[in-house]
Amino acid sequence: MSNKKLLLLAGDFTEDYETMVPFQALTMLGYEVHAVCPEKKSGDSVKTAIHDFEGDQTYTEKPGHNFALNYDFDKVQVDDYAGLVIPGGRGPEYLRLNERVIEIVQAFNNAGKPIASVCHGAQILAAAGVLEGRECSAYPAWPAHPAWLSAFAKLLGAQISI
Amino acid sequence: MSNKKLLLLAGDFTEDYETMVPFQALTMLGYEVHAVCPEKKSGDSVKTAIHDFEGDQTYTEKPGHNFALNYDFDKVQVDDYAGLVIPGGRGPEYLRLNERVIEIVQAFNNAGKPIASVCHGAQILAAAGVLEGRECSAYPAWPAHPAWLSAFAKLLGAQISI
Amino acid sequence: MSNKKLLLLAGDFTEDYETMVPFQALTMLGYEVHAVCPEKKSGDSVKTAIHDFEGDQTYTEKPGHNFALNYDFDKVQVDDYAGLVIPGGRGPEYLRLNERVIEIVQAFNNAGKPIASVCHGAQILAAAGVLEGRECSAYPAWPAHPAWLSAFAKLLGAQISI
Amino acid sequence: MSNKKLLLLAGDFTEDYETMVPFQALTMLGYEVHAVCPEKKSGDSVKTAIHDFEGDQTYTEKPGHNFALNYDFDKVQVDDYAGLVIPGGRGPEYLRLNERVIEIVQAFNNAGKPIASVCHGAQILAAAGVLEGRECSAYPAWPAHPAWLSAFAKLLGAQISI
Amino acid sequence: MSNKKLLLLAGDFTEDYETMVPFQALTMLGYEVHAVCPEKKSGDSVKTAIHDFEGDQTYTEKPGHNFALNYDFDKVQVDDYAGLVIPGGRGPEYLRLNERVIEIVQAFNNAGKPIASVCHGAQILAAAGVLEGRECSAYPAWPAHPAWLSAFAKLLGAQISI
Amino acid sequence: MSNKKLLLLAGDFTEDYETMVPFQALTMLGYEVHAVCPEKKSGDSVKTAIHDFEGDQTYTEKPGHNFALNYDFDKVQVDDYAGLVIPGGRGPEYLRLNERVIEIVQAFNNAGKPIASVCHGAQILAAAGVLEGRECSAYPAWPAHPAWLSAFAKLLGAQISI
Repeated sequence: MSNKKLLLLAGDFTEDYETMVPFQALTMLGYEVHAVCPEKKSGDSVKTAIHDFEGDQTYTEKPGHNFALNYDFDKVQVDDYAGLVIPGGRGPEYLRLNERVIEIVQAFNNAGKPIASVCHGAQILAAAGVLEGRECSAYPAWPAHPAWLSAFAKLLGAQISI
Repeated sequence: MSNKKLLLLAGDFTEDYETMVPFQALTMLGYEVHAVCPEKKSGDSVKTAIHDFEGDQTYTEKPGHNFALNYDFDKVQVDDYAGLVIPGGRGPEYLRLNERVIEIVQAFNNAGKPIASVCHGAQILAAAGVLEGRECSAYPAWPAHPAWLSAFAKLLGAQISI
Repeated sequence: MSNKKLLLLAGDFTEDYETMVPFQALTMLGYEVHAVCPEKKSGDSVKTAIHDFEGDQTYTEKPGHNFALNYDFDKVQVDDYAGLVIPGGRGPEYLRLNERVIEIVQAFNNAGKPIASVCHGAQILAAAGVLEGRECSAYPAWPAHPAWLSAFAKLLGAQISI
Repeated sequence: MSNKKLLLLAGDFTEDYETMVPFQALTMLGYEVHAVCPEKKSGDSVKTAIHDFEGDQTYTEKPGHNFALNYDFDKVQVDDYAGLVIPGGRGPEYLRLNERVIEIVQAFNNAGKPIASVCHGAQILAAAGVLEGRECSAYPAWPAHPAWLSAFAKLLGAQISI
Repeated sequence: MSNKKLLLLAGDFTEDYETMVPFQALTMLGYEVHAVCPEKKSGDSVKTAIHDFEGDQTYTEKPGHNFALNYDFDKVQVDDYAGLVIPGGRGPEYLRLNERVIEIVQAFNNAGKPIASVCHGAQILAAAGVLEGRECSAYPAWPAHPAWLSAFAKLLGAQISI
Repeated sequence: MSNKKLLLLAGDFTEDYETMVPFQALTMLGYEVHAVCPEKKSGDSVKTAIHDFEGDQTYTEKPGHNFALNYDFDKVQVDDYAGLVIPGGRGPEYLRLNERVIEIVQAFNNAGKPIASVCHGAQILAAAGVLEGRECSAYPAWPAHPAWLSAFAKLLGAQISI
């Protein structure tokens, strides 16, 4: 039987959609997704940010939903998870300064487990030194979420027929 | 071969998550989701609303993302679709006043096609007279998106194994 | 001598104007208006919402004033009041789920006392079952406040000459 | 028969409540209130401001409703009106720099017609030189709207019995 | 050796730029600038306001930065300072009602020390009675900050060559 | 005689203070500061962002002032300037993707002219490849503006005595 748990690294001002869409879409597939944030516990929440294009030279930012975490960061054991999800937005910029975050990312990488990172999530991958020798989509090539999630699900071994 | 197209009825101030999560999660499964809004065309967008619980007696509202439509409302042919998605928020309150919206909902219902409605989406179902003899979740029992989407996918005949 | 007290049922996110205009206009006429909200006391406040039309397919919402309550909800005795005012906005949607609110509305109705309800206030009237056999203005026919207030004052027996 | 027309001097960022409450309460009494703003016509609107006390050393400001004007400023003839209403907020600060505004206020004053000014409205009265020899309520003694409106109505000759 | 300390009178909703620009520019020149606010201590902060022109008849207001104070108001001794800076915005309106603020301003004036006041800062100068016999720039002639700061530095005896 | 012109590279959502403080403080010193943005001309403006620490795990963002540009980006000749200022915020993230921006930064660097970059401004320096062999302050060591500006002024040869 496959490992059905996934880890999602949220933080204050990770992007609203990029945090909730993977959480809900992967949960819909049947995975148990543990959403965590350093220094926070299950039941705490992070504030998300709305990043959008509204006619300026770059994206705008507005306050988003409060996103409820459902697992304690301090209890994370990488062995429990089949894969890792890293939303973008403004969270990764400070999350990459957290040593335990870097350890976790490196452990997923060393174990050869799939990592789904979107947009600014790559800031954490770069800080963890796991991008070497890999191609990586980055701003301004904003990845299509559904295609990205679908590819991640395939890497995890999911089989979907409609 | 099954019909893989779904219709999603968006409007100004439909809820941010309730609009984008179904759109992306169902697209991830392989469906082609047509997001439409009365009087709007493919490429236009609607403004979404953030509904959240922040300590008051009811939910708060803040501006959300602009959600891009990808199909012309006026071109909708119910026969083309296997199912209908109706996000909540403040859109349904005015969308139910649109005759063509009501016609569309009734046509889905008469054809026995699955309708996934969340939260205030029930305002449209009520206006279309398709709730009679059915149970319907409503505020304050806020439906769990992933379970709701997963049940909708099963009704559509999707098979998912992880 | 006539009964000069009125009851006003406010709640979080009742509409800014629809809450304050009746409160002040009726106070100006000489009525003592008790503004109350379930689970709140005199001196507490509710947050109002600004509903406005700004070019979208439906109204927008922005944060409004904090509206100060001047009476304890738990002390309300329907016999003390000559009439009831129910502002609209997003308050009625959750206020109608409160049993004591429903009791109060039904008691006003059974006693044949005037009820002035505006916009979404009708959600409470419907939940209380007091709309049967009556006509009721509703969205999108937004009632003119001054005419509405003037008619209410007349029902209460007020005489105004200018 | 008494003159039933009143003039209300609105402007961008006059206070939300201080603009709408007098407009609606006086209309409710039966007056025809002409709401005007320099350089604007009937059907145009001004943006109001929400001034509120939220725990800081002075009031906060947030965007309020758009307030619809119903008369052309350029058509104002002081002889047509029985009284003048000047809302507060941030409008008076710039309105007092408008020569025609000053002329209008002085004409009301010279004709001995009642002027109801609230809060920052006194900035216009001071600029018009009509405060000499009069007492004037000012911030931080925020005037009670209903008592203020009731006193104004009495000065206008209104008779109210409830 | 010249006195190198300056006093800056901040308050809730003094203008964002008008508070920080003088603070930082004068600090850059080598002055030790004590930023104070009545009833607050070093380490406390005030909320600033963004005043801007965005197409309306007067300026808009939005929330600005929290500005950190670095000195206790209650410890201010006018003898310690070579000059006084009074930012504009909405702070001066209420700061002028504080007796100690007025005393401080009068003491600077009586000692012939330079006072740099911008925009609404003049409300404090007027309340302190120190404007008599002086010309004073005021809204809508919005002063150029750099020229204003440069003139202030010259009055303080600074010598700058680039 | 020294070259008194400086170039400042602004963009949409460069930080409010980090854009205006250097502009005004350096202008106060006597420099002519040309504020430019790709694809914009003198008289156009950029929207700034307020970045602040308000109790979350990272900074918040709110809309700031519109900052007026005073020179055409397309007319910039590096030879005309004695130094370059690069504000932080969210502008540098997209400005670094502009080829002409990179050329300009490299030209300043090759000519040995001082470059004052704050906070996220380093993203442009990194993209231009001018950080090699240099130490660079970066988030979370937020640089003190006045010390930073003072050091920059000294590099430019300014002499200040107070």
